[in-house]
Amino acid sequence: MSRYAYVNGQYTDHQDGMIHIEDRGYQFADGVYEVVMIYQDRLVDEEGHLDRLEGSLQEVKIRMPLSRAAIKLIMRELIRRNDVKNGIIYLQINRGVAPRDHKFPVSSKPSVVMTTKRLQFSNKNQENGVKIISLPDLRWKRCDIKSISLLPNVLAKQQAAENNAFEAWLIDTEDMVTEGTSSNAWIVSQQNKVITRKASKSILNGITRQTLLKIMHHHRVELEERSFSLQEALEAKEAFLTSSSAFVMPVCQINDTLINAGKPGPFTLDILQEYKKFLQELPILARA
Amino acid sequence: MSRYAYVNGQYTDHQDGMIHIEDRGYQFADGVYEVVMIYQDRLVDEEGHLDRLEGSLQEVKIRMPLSRAAIKLIMRELIRRNDVKNGIIYLQINRGVAPRDHKFPVSSKPSVVMTTKRLQFSNKNQENGVKIISLPDLRWKRCDIKSISLLPNVLAKQQAAENNAFEAWLIDTEDMVTEGTSSNAWIVSQQNKVITRKASKSILNGITRQTLLKIMHHHRVELEERSFSLQEALEAKEAFLTSSSAFVMPVCQINDTLINAGKPGPFTLDILQEYKKFLQELPILARA
Repeated sequence: MSRYAYVNGQYTDHQDGMIHIEDRGYQFADGVYEVVMIYQDRLVDEEGHLDRLEGSLQEVKIRMPLSRAAIKLIMRELIRRNDVKNGIIYLQINRGVAPRDHKFPVSSKPSVVMTTKRLQFSNKNQENGVKIISLPDLRWKRCDIKSISLLPNVLAKQQAAENNAFEAWLIDTEDMVTEGTSSNAWIVSQQNKVITRKASKSILNGITRQTLLKIMHHHRVELEERSFSLQEALEAKEAFLTSSSAFVMPVCQINDTLINAGKPGPFTLDILQEYKKFLQELPILARA
Repeated sequence: MSRYAYVNGQYTDHQDGMIHIEDRGYQFADGVYEVVMIYQDRLVDEEGHLDRLEGSLQEVKIRMPLSRAAIKLIMRELIRRNDVKNGIIYLQINRGVAPRDHKFPVSSKPSVVMTTKRLQFSNKNQENGVKIISLPDLRWKRCDIKSISLLPNVLAKQQAAENNAFEAWLIDTEDMVTEGTSSNAWIVSQQNKVITRKASKSILNGITRQTLLKIMHHHRVELEERSFSLQEALEAKEAFLTSSSAFVMPVCQINDTLINAGKPGPFTLDILQEYKKFLQELPILARA
């Protein structure tokens, strides 16, 4: 837990960070968010996250309450105050406080909350690979919007945890994998093709996903952006997932089936190394 | 806006009612709610709402933080303090405050918030009937849980408002009406059959819906609990919607199609009268 949070214009003690009970984020999940990694004093893909934030706000018709420059300034100040070298910055924007009514209030000032959390990166999961389980995808039909309407994700992640799994891959009504509850899903076929679902309303177009696609294009990896079935995943040569906080995570078991004999695959480990190189090349945050 | 709110054990000034920024209701929509009508000093279907509240909590595995007796006591005390004779009491229970992580926290104390709002009942809409529009149902697949994960409902209700409509009826992938964004949907067929969708995971089993079904059974109304298509609704003799706050609301226009020549239908008005009789027979709240 960090010392400070940013809440609607003020840097406050984290434990005193409060919002009103009629904030629409609290009563209607009427808001969006982003999580940006801080890796060895670097902000990872900051612009990509802020692009997506603006896109999410636009989709739900919440006006951007601050300029991008102001948001970047606040992010830096909060990171500085909390002295975060490795961790995350969490940024949430809601439609604001108004008497409860489903439709948008005539006027409300969007709420802005930012928190940070320090994290110690461990390579353990990356070295061993993780287990995942499959669950039906119960989410709404606009998963491209990074909204705080996350109850289905919460319930699926909990079910994964109760099954000693790192993540759940969600399966649509056509038996195809959409994505994880907070990560994108990838497989490497027996023909050495890397397969990940095409960005659409059914998945969140992960920022790490986008970066990894660029890295793969650069390295001329044979790539197919298309849906794949659970069965195809079970028969894959390798599997992995990506997210801002997990980077590239080898998947070595899906339900009861071992992938690559239960060990991280060579392609996955290679691309993880490439991703780490990308991280190392990011600019270090200037410290005041 | 009422003077007092109840927030986690305290009666506080409504405007000072605050919750922490890491309440899971705020970050994950990880909570459930109920809205109970207060009609002429009567609590409408209190036990039904509390039954459903307990059901929702059970489905999302949040423990009931207070006994039912305690909740009823707090409801009465808040109504008394705010001197509400006509209006609503809103009750929200979340999983509580914990450092942000999708899966359930090992321990957290569920948050309880209650607010009231005074309402002046107007018969205008009931007398004239309302317009509704149809929209695709984008919601998740557990609409039987009364969760605060309401962003899809908010967006659809807003679209209705922008089309000068009272409500949107949501259409599933098979062109069948599920329900409204905050109400259940009913039609009367040309053969004088009353049709409403069967309770399932696709709709919220409205308390007013349940009460109305009982009233209809009592009056031996010819009733079909089954899905109906948008087309069937457009060709219906009458249409109406039900909710705790709208009671029985005649629908006289669906998209561009007038229903019953644009006027509330006779069956709808009859059953509204029966519902009002039911309201009048409810016990009046004892005042300290």
